[in-house]
Amino acid sequence: MADRNAHALADVFKALADPARVKIMAMLLNAEEVCACDISAAIGKSAATASHHLKILRDAGLTTSERRGTWVYYRAVPQRLEALVGALSLGR
Amino acid sequence: MADRNAHALADVFKALADPARVKIMAMLLNAEEVCACDISAAIGKSAATASHHLKILRDAGLTTSERRGTWVYYRAVPQRLEALVGALSLGR
Repeated sequence: MADRNAHALADVFKALADPARVKIMAMLLNAEEVCACDISAAIGKSAATASHHLKILRDAGLTTSERRGTWVYYRAVPQRLEALVGALSLGR
Repeated sequence: MADRNAHALADVFKALADPARVKIMAMLLNAEEVCACDISAAIGKSAATASHHLKILRDAGLTTSERRGTWVYYRAVPQRLEALVGALSLGR
């Protein structure tokens, strides 16, 4: 596996290597979309902390977000998770 | 998702959150088994560093190892990777 690919995959795993972010991903994967306003309560963290974790997940391509009016809504990108395992298995 | 489960999953992702360990996992997933003696050259690290990474992967349940004579042989546990994604998707 090329260095560049190994680094890219490690970065996505790093985005998931936190209990709060694991909880957020599980929440998003089990709903069509979730309002950012509901996430901080669900993970028991402040809105600022939730927002920090959501940014890391989005930067890693694991979620998408859309602002509608006052709120930002998040969705999981399950293909990104599957691609992670696939890339490891194929050694790419 | 319970705190305990979120921590356990985050720990496995942490084990994968390193380029050298990503390379080792890709190598193991693409072979039946690999001698530890071949891994350090493959990832371009010292034997001691390779051994450190292999321990982290084994402790996370991502590999198994077996000593035969002088050498230790490693195998991937692909079910562990699949279970990771499954646990997130089911929110358990």
